[in-house]
Parts: sequence; C-alpha cells; structure tokens
Amino acid sequence: MKTEILSMLRESDGYVSGQQICEKFHVSRTAVWKVIEQLKEEGYQIEAVRNRGYRLSESPDILSQAEIASRISTEWAGRNVSYFHETDSTNTQAKKLGEEGAPAGTLAVADRQNAGKGRRGRSWESPPGRDIYMSLLLRPDIRPSDAPMLTLVMAQSVAEALREQTGIDARIKWPNDIVAGGKKLCGILTEMSAEIDYINYVVIGVGINVNQPSFPEEIADRATSLMLEAGRTFLRAPLIAAVMERFEENCSLFLGTRDLSGIQAAYNDLLVNVGEKVRVLEPGHEYSALSSGINKKGELLVQKEDGTTEAVFAGEVSVRGIYGYV
Amino acid sequence: MKTEILSMLRESDGYVSGQQICEKFHVSRTAVWKVIEQLKEEGYQIEAVRNRGYRLSESPDILSQAEIASRISTEWAGRNVSYFHETDSTNTQAKKLGEEGAPAGTLAVADRQNAGKGRRGRSWESPPGRDIYMSLLLRPDIRPSDAPMLTLVMAQSVAEALREQTGIDARIKWPNDIVAGGKKLCGILTEMSAEIDYINYVVIGVGINVNQPSFPEEIADRATSLMLEAGRTFLRAPLIAAVMERFEENCSLFLGTRDLSGIQAAYNDLLVNVGEKVRVLEPGHEYSALSSGINKKGELLVQKEDGTTEAVFAGEVSVRGIYGYV
Repeated sequence: MKTEILSMLRESDGYVSGQQICEKFHVSRTAVWKVIEQLKEEGYQIEAVRNRGYRLSESPDILSQAEIASRISTEWAGRNVSYFHETDSTNTQAKKLGEEGAPAGTLAVADRQNAGKGRRGRSWESPPGRDIYMSLLLRPDIRPSDAPMLTLVMAQSVAEALREQTGIDARIKWPNDIVAGGKKLCGILTEMSAEIDYINYVVIGVGINVNQPSFPEEIADRATSLMLEAGRTFLRAPLIAAVMERFEENCSLFLGTRDLSGIQAAYNDLLVNVGEKVRVLEPGHEYSALSSGINKKGELLVQKEDGTTEAVFAGEVSVRGIYGYV
Repeated sequence: MKTEILSMLRESDGYVSGQQICEKFHVSRTAVWKVIEQLKEEGYQIEAVRNRGYRLSESPDILSQAEIASRISTEWAGRNVSYFHETDSTNTQAKKLGEEGAPAGTLAVADRQNAGKGRRGRSWESPPGRDIYMSLLLRPDIRPSDAPMLTLVMAQSVAEALREQTGIDARIKWPNDIVAGGKKLCGILTEMSAEIDYINYVVIGVGINVNQPSFPEEIADRATSLMLEAGRTFLRAPLIAAVMERFEENCSLFLGTRDLSGIQAAYNDLLVNVGEKVRVLEPGHEYSALSSGINKKGELLVQKEDGTTEAVFAGEVSVRGIYGYV
C-alpha cells in the first residue's frame, strides 16, 4: 500500500484526500495516517491540510523499496524490488535470489555496497547516498553462449535512459561501459549460472556514478558522474525506473531474434570510436585497426592494416581509442 | 589426525601399536584411544590387543570426512572434502563453497540428498546409505564456452574408475551418462558461474547407483546399479577416490590442450553406439544417422543418410540408439 500511496501523491497535481485513499484501499483513516507518518520518517516532505488532504511538496533523493517500486511501470523488468540500505554486493544478492527461485525481473538495489564487485573479482567503489548499485535477475530461454549479448543490451539501455533523463551525451565504450566526455560513468557486470545447454539465471549488475561530486586523483581522469557532467544532482529512483523501461523494450527485441539485430544500429550510433583508429589488445599481442561497430552477435568489427576485417569477441581482447582513456 | 590414523590402520598388514601412533603425531595414549573409540562408534571394527596394538578387522561401507579423505591421494582433486550426512544437493553445497572462495578440488559428498538435482531442474533420487552423490569444485582458467568439455572429461573418468574398480563393462552414452548393459549407472550435472569471458567456478555433480538392490518398476528397464551388474556390494569411498584420481589425470590432459584431443580416443573406445545407427533428436526435428564418435571439441560426429557429416553439440540435441534405452 505504501508504494501505491506514494504513487498517488506523486501523480496528483494538488491534494489527495484521506478519504480518497481510504476508499481506494479499503482501510481506515488511521491506517492511512500511519503510512503517511512512515513516509515522513523516510524523508518525504508531506503537507497535511485539514479538509484538503495530503500533498507531496518535495521529492528528495530517497532510495527505498516503495520509492523504487512506485516509479517502475514495466511489465516485468524491476517489478520485484529487493532493496538493501547496505549489502555486500547487489550481484551477490541477486544471485542468492536466483538460487532461491526468485522470478525473472527481480531487481536488487542497494544504497551502499561494502563489497561491490567489478569484473574478474575486482572491487567497485560503492559509497552510500549518491550512486546507483543494482542487479537485475533474468531467466532467459537462450543458450549460455548467447548470454554475453545481454550485457550489450543493458549497455544500450543504460545509455538511452541516461541520455533521456539527464541530457548528458552518454555513449558506449564497447562492449559495456557507459562514458561521457571520455570518462567512465557506469560499469556493467554480467554473471550467469548455467548448465551445459541451459541457463539457470543471469544477473546483470549496473553501477552508475550519479551524485558523486569528485573522484580521487588517481582515477579523476578516467571516472565521472552525472552530477559532474550536468552540473546538478539527480534523483536516483527515476533513473533506475528509466533503465528498467529501456531494458524491457530492448530485451524483448533481443529475445525475438536471439541476436542484437534489433538494437545494432542504435548501439552503433552511441558507440565511441566508430570509424576511428583503435588499439586492439589481445593477450600477448596488440595491433591498430579501424573500428566499424558491432555485428549482430555483439562482436566488434575492426579493419586491420592489411585490409582484412576481424570480428573481436568481448572479454578476450580489449579495445581502446588511440587518444585518452576511451 | 583421524584421517591419518585410519590410513595407518588400513595400510598395515598386522597391528599398529599405540606407541607408534603416539610418536607419529606427538600425542598422548589417551588421545589415540579417544580417536579409536570415535572410529568404532562410526562403525569401524577395530581390535585392540594388549602389547600388540590396534588392527582394523573389517572395512564397512562408511562415508565420512575421514574415510573419504584417507582414501584420496591425488594432488588436488578431492583433496578438500566437505562431507554431509544429509544435505539438499551436493551441487548446491559445492556452489555455495564456490561462492565462499573454497579452493579448486574441493569435493562435496553426501550420504543422502533430500533435493538431489538432475539436469534442467529435474530431481535425482537420492536414498541414504548406498549410493554416491558428490560434486567437485573447479576454477579452470578457460573460456566459459569451453566448460562443457569438462563434463565429458568427468564421464570418461567415471567410466574408467568404475571399470577398474568393479570389472563392470561401464560405457559412456554421449555426452555424459555412464551405462552398463544398456541401463544408466551414473548421471553427471555440470553447472558453472561465469562472467562474459571468465569462469568464477565450475561444479561437476556425479551421482552413481552403487548398492541399490532394485529399482521401481517404472525405471527398472532404464536404471541399474553396480550391485545389480556385479552381483555384489561395493565400498563407496574407494570408488570416490578412484574417480578423483582418474579425473585429475584426464583433466590435466584437457587443460594442457584446452580440448579433448588427449582423451578423445579413449572416450570413443568406451562410447556406446559408435559405428551404429542412432536417432538424432533436435527440437522439432529428428533423423537417423551413423555415429562415429566425438571430435576433439566433444561434439558427436554423425553421418547423415545423404552422406554429409554433422557435428552435434551436446544439449541442443539428444542422441539415442535405435534399439533400447541407450
């Protein structure tokens, strides 16, 4: 009920009467009053005026189960929110939910991670109160070898959501970093539990630097936040909701064809370094080539100096522009 | 110390004096006596004769941490045993150990599973006191897409171990069932936790029907046990140890080349239906073909009626002989 009352207050232009709420949920005035008090305690500023009702006067940047759930209006993506004020890592929590049989679309969100995970066991800095740490649980009926494409689907969805919500020129660094002005805004960590030919579940973790006002000197030339790029702060819950909406749509395109043909053009539009020279770093071997965007399997097509084209598979190699971090 | 005392007793032809044990482990006679009493309680028959010492007069079919560990003399496979008298499923436990950072080679063994797992979420009957349920944790430095080959490495290892320990004509039904006389003796369930290009861990679960005297009518024509095939019972711990030994050797061949070229010939020697007609069952389509064994990637090569050869990938299709279950 808390989620729905929050939605009612947010969607109303003026006041919502206590009577209206009582009738909608078939509860007493006291029950409504209790929920309003809880919301106030969580930090919402709610005016209560006799004979008019309740009005949400300001939306602070609150993360809570109700706040996130009240923003999300998708069919399945993010419909079942597990919120943690603090946890080890949302990927770890989402995997646990996956083992326990939670439905596809379950979203683990934390305000703070004390053991945030980057790729290959690296850590992901996760201070409280300003960034987004979330992990979406999926149970796609695809082959395990096709699962890596989901990472690109998420990258595309995050880039679209950030562009639409913030106006920042968010772009994709192949395969799955989101960058702005040559610096990293967001990282994505996809993990999967699978049998030989059958996916138990996939967890896609997304970490977005939202309201971080500065970065330690060592990484300041490589990392940025939405706040630094836009010069203002953002509410996190609507950003989470926007990513879920974009993902649900892009994922349905992906599942329709089981490849990236449905988002390939849009992805390549947002990809950095297309048509430019890049360095392809293979283990023990590197070379320069011209990047021409992804194919429908998500491999990066690069034209080598001898004129041959190579399809580069994510993970085995890394690709970077000739200038700067990206 | 219990594991080592058990090994000393088992390896000695005659009596082992209390003094010998005391000196070896730098403990008191009372400490030795306590361990001997524990072993007796677990079911070992140990004679104690004044002035001569202790003698293991009979080895019952006991499963315990000490019993299993005292049988295993590999470098790494099965060196770290987690024994459960009863658990949900050894794959679930091994995955949990994998998440917690347990080393490669950790082996979860249970006497009974109350939620034993078969492929694709099916269940695996797991009554107490007579079968082997075990799951080996691995952390191979290979690509996730190469992990399915490990299932064939385990199938080969189980088949070799059972042949050597029991004399039964154990054979492989591609890709990873072990059969005897056309009936299933053992199933293997491989699960993996991976990032796009990086394996967190692989768990290979092995269920072997050992001393099961009969099967329910519905499956009696498809399932068998070592006891039914050999007409006698077997100790489980030495079988577990033999599988670990064979796996360690075969796995090192696999990791050397990252393909099955090192075991391909031996695997094809034990494979059923080679050179015979099989039915290839694809989703929504099936056809007859001549099986000619696996290639070095573990795909089954079949010759279709139009003369073309196809490499069939495990999981997408199933293959069965024209006659009977296998």
